[in-house]
Amino acid sequence: MNGPVIVLVEPQLGENIGMVARAMANFGLTELRLVKPRDGWPSEKARAAASKADHVIDATRVFETLEEAIADLTFVYATTARVRDSYKPVAAPVTAAATLRGRFNAGQPTGILFGRERWGLSNEEVAMADEIVTFPVNPEFASLNIAQAVLLMSYEWMKSGMEDVAATPFSGLEQRPATKEQLLGMCEHLEEALEARGYFRPAGKKPKIVENLRAVLSRPNFSEQEINMLRGVISSLDRFSRKNPRGAKPLGDTDTATEDASHDGSARDGE
Amino acid sequence: MNGPVIVLVEPQLGENIGMVARAMANFGLTELRLVKPRDGWPSEKARAAASKADHVIDATRVFETLEEAIADLTFVYATTARVRDSYKPVAAPVTAAATLRGRFNAGQPTGILFGRERWGLSNEEVAMADEIVTFPVNPEFASLNIAQAVLLMSYEWMKSGMEDVAATPFSGLEQRPATKEQLLGMCEHLEEALEARGYFRPAGKKPKIVENLRAVLSRPNFSEQEINMLRGVISSLDRFSRKNPRGAKPLGDTDTATEDASHDGSARDGE
Repeated sequence: MNGPVIVLVEPQLGENIGMVARAMANFGLTELRLVKPRDGWPSEKARAAASKADHVIDATRVFETLEEAIADLTFVYATTARVRDSYKPVAAPVTAAATLRGRFNAGQPTGILFGRERWGLSNEEVAMADEIVTFPVNPEFASLNIAQAVLLMSYEWMKSGMEDVAATPFSGLEQRPATKEQLLGMCEHLEEALEARGYFRPAGKKPKIVENLRAVLSRPNFSEQEINMLRGVISSLDRFSRKNPRGAKPLGDTDTATEDASHDGSARDGE
Repeated sequence: MNGPVIVLVEPQLGENIGMVARAMANFGLTELRLVKPRDGWPSEKARAAASKADHVIDATRVFETLEEAIADLTFVYATTARVRDSYKPVAAPVTAAATLRGRFNAGQPTGILFGRERWGLSNEEVAMADEIVTFPVNPEFASLNIAQAVLLMSYEWMKSGMEDVAATPFSGLEQRPATKEQLLGMCEHLEEALEARGYFRPAGKKPKIVENLRAVLSRPNFSEQEINMLRGVISSLDRFSRKNPRGAKPLGDTDTATEDASHDGSARDGE
C-alpha cells in the first residue's frame, strides 16, 4: 500500500469511477475499492475516463458489502457534506491527511469512504468509520461530486508527505541577484546618456530627478541577467537612431561604430 | 469581485467549462472568462455540467484574445504542468493562494490562467502572466484536467481565507470530558460486579488484574456521555440474565427489580 485505500460505496457512473482513478493517480494513490457499483465491473467508461490511470483501474477490487471492503483496514475516514448528528470527531482535509500520514508511517492500512453520487453515505455506513472528514465549501453552493472529493483528499494526502508544501516540482531559471555596483553602473550609464540629451533641466533639479530615477530602478531588485539586458536596451537607444539603426551604413560614418553593440549591455561607449 | 478571475484559454469541451464553474462555485469564486471557446458560447453542455452553478455560467464573459481577457487585472498566475524555461517565479498552489489573497485584500483584481485541454498554455501566453503556479503531482502520472486544476486552485483560495485551515463547517456533538471520579465510579461498578462472579482469581492476583482493567478503561479517555452509556451496559449484564431479561416476570420475583434499570447507567444496585 502506498497510501489510504479509496472506497466508493455504490458508485453509479463509470465515468465518475474513472475520474476518481485519475485523481488518485495524480497524487500517487493506487488502491481503489468499489462496493456494489451500479453498472457492474469492469467498466469501459471508467477506463476511458481514467485517462491512462490503467494501473488503478486494473487493480480495482469489488465488494458486496462495505464491511468486507474495509475488513482489513485499521482506521477509516468517512467523507460527508451533511451535518451528522453523532459524537464522531469531524476533521478538515488537512487534519485528516496528517492523521492518515501518521498512521501510514506507522505501517497501518487506512481508508477513506466516499458515498453515492446522489445522497452520499448512510448513517450506518458513517458509523463504520472512525472519524468524519468534510470539506470547507461555500455553504451557499456545496456540490462536490465524488471525483472532486477524491481529488481534494488525494491532493492533501500528497501534500501531507511533502517536507515543504511551498515546494514546487520545478522552478524558474536561477537568477543571480545583482550587486549594488551593477545596479549603480546601469544607473550611471542611463544618466550619462540622458545628460548628453539635456534631459536634466532645470539643472538645479538634477539631484532630485536622479534620486527619483534611481528609486524606480532599485525597487524591482533586478537580477544580474536583467541588468545586462537593460544595459543593452539603453545602449541601443543611446547609440542608434531610427534613421541610423544598427547595421545601417549611413554616408560619412564608418561601420565600426555599429558593430560592437551587443544585446547584453557590454558595450556602453560610442557616444 | 470576490476572488481571482478564472480564465480558460481556448477550452474545447462544454462539459469541462461546466465542471470548472461547479468547482469555482463550491469555493466561492464567481468570475469566469473564456478566450475563444471552441464550441462557442453559451453552451448547454456547460450549463448541465455546472450542476446548478448557474450564477457562474450566466456571468461568464467571452473574449477574442487573452490580452483582452486580462486587460483589467493587475496580477495574473499562469498554471502549467510542464517545466518552462523562463525566469518567471514558480509557486506552489498554497503560495499562490496566499499571494492572491494578499492582493485581494489590497483591492487588486487578479486572475489565474488555465490552458487548453490538450497542450495547456503557449509560452507567449505564459509570458503574459506575472508568475507560474504548478501542482505537486506524481511525476509518473501527471494528468490533471482543467476542471481538476481549477478545483485545486479554488480550494486553496478558499483555505487561504480561513483563519484556521483545520476548522470544519460543522463538528461532532460536544462531549463533556469525564472526571476521574466518573471514570473510577465505572471501574468500581464493573469490578464489584465481576467480584460477585468470582472473576478475580487467584485472589492474590486481583490487584494486578484490577490495574490492567483500569489501564484498558482509562486509555480511551471516555467522555461523560460514553461512561453513562457503558454503566448502563454493565448494569444490564449484571442485573439481568438471558433467562430473566429485563421486563420478564419470572416466578417468585417481584417486577420492581427490573423497572428501574435504565440505559444511562443511573441504576447500579440490584445485586
